[in-house]
Amino acid sequence: MTVRAAGKTSADADPLALARAIADADRRAASALNLVPSENRVSPLASLPLASDFYNRYFFNTDGDPLFWEFRGGEDIAHIEALGAAALRRMAMARYCNLRPISGMSAMILTVAALSKPGSTVVSVDQDSGGHYATPALLGRLGRRSRLLTCKDGAVDESELADVLAPGGVDLVYVDVQNCVRVPDFRLMSDVIRNVSPGTRLYVDASHYLGLVLGGLVDNPLDCGADAYGGSTHKSFPGPHKGVIFTNAEDVDESLRSAQFDLVSSHHFAETLALSLAALEVEDRIGDYARATNDNARRLAGALAEAGFRVCGDTGTGYTDTHQVWVELAGTDEAYALSNRLAEAGIRVNLQSSMPGMSGVHLRLGSNEVTFEGAGPQAIEELAGALVQARERALGPHTVSEIRGRFGAPFYTDPEKLKVEAGL
Amino acid sequence: MTVRAAGKTSADADPLALARAIADADRRAASALNLVPSENRVSPLASLPLASDFYNRYFFNTDGDPLFWEFRGGEDIAHIEALGAAALRRMAMARYCNLRPISGMSAMILTVAALSKPGSTVVSVDQDSGGHYATPALLGRLGRRSRLLTCKDGAVDESELADVLAPGGVDLVYVDVQNCVRVPDFRLMSDVIRNVSPGTRLYVDASHYLGLVLGGLVDNPLDCGADAYGGSTHKSFPGPHKGVIFTNAEDVDESLRSAQFDLVSSHHFAETLALSLAALEVEDRIGDYARATNDNARRLAGALAEAGFRVCGDTGTGYTDTHQVWVELAGTDEAYALSNRLAEAGIRVNLQSSMPGMSGVHLRLGSNEVTFEGAGPQAIEELAGALVQARERALGPHTVSEIRGRFGAPFYTDPEKLKVEAGL
Repeated sequence: MTVRAAGKTSADADPLALARAIADADRRAASALNLVPSENRVSPLASLPLASDFYNRYFFNTDGDPLFWEFRGGEDIAHIEALGAAALRRMAMARYCNLRPISGMSAMILTVAALSKPGSTVVSVDQDSGGHYATPALLGRLGRRSRLLTCKDGAVDESELADVLAPGGVDLVYVDVQNCVRVPDFRLMSDVIRNVSPGTRLYVDASHYLGLVLGGLVDNPLDCGADAYGGSTHKSFPGPHKGVIFTNAEDVDESLRSAQFDLVSSHHFAETLALSLAALEVEDRIGDYARATNDNARRLAGALAEAGFRVCGDTGTGYTDTHQVWVELAGTDEAYALSNRLAEAGIRVNLQSSMPGMSGVHLRLGSNEVTFEGAGPQAIEELAGALVQARERALGPHTVSEIRGRFGAPFYTDPEKLKVEAGL
Repeated sequence: MTVRAAGKTSADADPLALARAIADADRRAASALNLVPSENRVSPLASLPLASDFYNRYFFNTDGDPLFWEFRGGEDIAHIEALGAAALRRMAMARYCNLRPISGMSAMILTVAALSKPGSTVVSVDQDSGGHYATPALLGRLGRRSRLLTCKDGAVDESELADVLAPGGVDLVYVDVQNCVRVPDFRLMSDVIRNVSPGTRLYVDASHYLGLVLGGLVDNPLDCGADAYGGSTHKSFPGPHKGVIFTNAEDVDESLRSAQFDLVSSHHFAETLALSLAALEVEDRIGDYARATNDNARRLAGALAEAGFRVCGDTGTGYTDTHQVWVELAGTDEAYALSNRLAEAGIRVNLQSSMPGMSGVHLRLGSNEVTFEGAGPQAIEELAGALVQARERALGPHTVSEIRGRFGAPFYTDPEKLKVEAGL
């Protein structure tokens, strides 16, 4: 077997050599700084179940019913899922939490199935306004009619929404804004719906800003009149790849449970345990984490703008209300040169070409992961400095370790403490 | 915080104590013998990515295009997904392999969306004939009309299928038989479809017996005229919780890719790497594994029948053509007493109440996991002996270790060898 330059193996694959390549890449990943707003780093504590035997198992007996052990092995930890759901409900300020979806898209499919009928209309947000790329096509494949709303800087045009609702037949308004530095005004939408089409449900897919809602930094959609909200749990919320849906309405919860029974079988037990541990671990400091995430995003945006980058927003509005920072680049060549120089030094950025109001290839940055790891003002300033330098030339070999040297305590349990106290 | 008897903590949850409970339960799980046909044990090699940083990451650049690194970090291992897909294609004897579904139900949703239109009819198998519990309701939620077929001992009534197809409007026959000791006759269905409704697609959801198809023990659906087949990858195939879909038809593959783009975003990168490693690791011996799995199932069935259990099937037909063994019990009390005594000794069985042709609570056993771990004839005989004893009284504390002492080499890489050769 030949091993090529960058650790790549030939097509005549030896699984052991591939395992070594994964282990090697994982060691490099451990120190890398990730500025991708759709990713986070699951904590050492929360990742514990992922490598456990529970990864292999089904689990349905959430209530620990002694006569419902169809699938055995979870008896001694059955309560952890319930404890995790309770922590999520407290943070989400919701009576009900459904943690059966196995991803953000799974939560989307489940919500559409639960809150709209085939043949009905579902309204979502145009991709050019930050809506999710998949929603209209997904609706078509599920036999729903799709109508799109524009939403500029978080503001929906009231009369446009009223016009869409007026003819009737709209079961659901699904607010799927993913790419945003301004969060949509849920209350405005809720008011229009109540006036024009009170039977229509309002759902907020908060995948990107879920951690900021749970931390109290972004308005809670339920307080603003939404019937339910949820999304993926691994972006601004530092959990595993799963989905959650929150509501205060018993009938909505029942609709979701019923749809879940039809559309999700195994809810990925290890990931559910991981989500529960992540929720319990971060609950005490979710407010601090959300604030630090946005503070860091604003600081990063400001420092980049000061150094001459074309950053979306301005100092007057603090550039961003979320974890996202958007930076326009001169062209594809500059974008790839920058991204490659950063990647070589262990700083990973996200190139995109579809942020609302942005042209060409641009950076969609996120402060959420480095904040979770303990980045504060100093580290963010140095990180911005590295991005500035990488426009022109390669970064020094110690750049990342120097930036990491500025990190404070992370928002998760120290791995050494975990080893001792969990008896690992 | 108080810790209760069985390692359970009070509601005032300390995440570190919960982590300890998970670690403790995982240690017990390591030696447990699992006889659950819908579960398998991902190998130490294949589980490597699950605990790695790749769990946290998105990955779309399967071709390693130097201009498509929107999400960084996978550069040095991008080829592993492609190598895994190639191994799966070879075992499945298929030109195309879609490994984007994130679960068996995800593969079901994707297939229905790709191969049928809203408003059309999709035919599946009645639950009383072993069909999946969720299929008809799932079809309704996706705006398809559901029609059900009976399928007794793998035999579909030709005239019943012809009658269902004759009025037209059937886009898809979705063969969702999960619970079976006889595999459906795909060729018969294909012949009827070709004669009566040649535009109708035939899909085989082989979730349960996928490993047996890949090992050549069960007829390959593509050879029998199916347009595609697939399912979950963690039952008789010893992989992670994922889904795959195979086809030889370019247009079917394109339909699946298009649906996948709309319905799956992240395909769970760590699990995809795990699936790739599992496929490459088992490929050389998948035939032996499939045969040993069925040999063990037949031996277990025969031994249980000889000891007076009411086992589905008879010696003439070898009881089972799959990994499943069904055992009728006298009633709920006997079922739970048996299951509890076994669980206390570390043997985990699956109680069900819906196997075709079975009444009351019964055992749905699977030989797939213990076979993957190295169980041969002697171990299976002793395992059967343990089930026989557990009808009457508790098992001795060394029962499981004695049975494990009879195991031969597993179908996966030795963990110590893995540590050394992968540089862990």
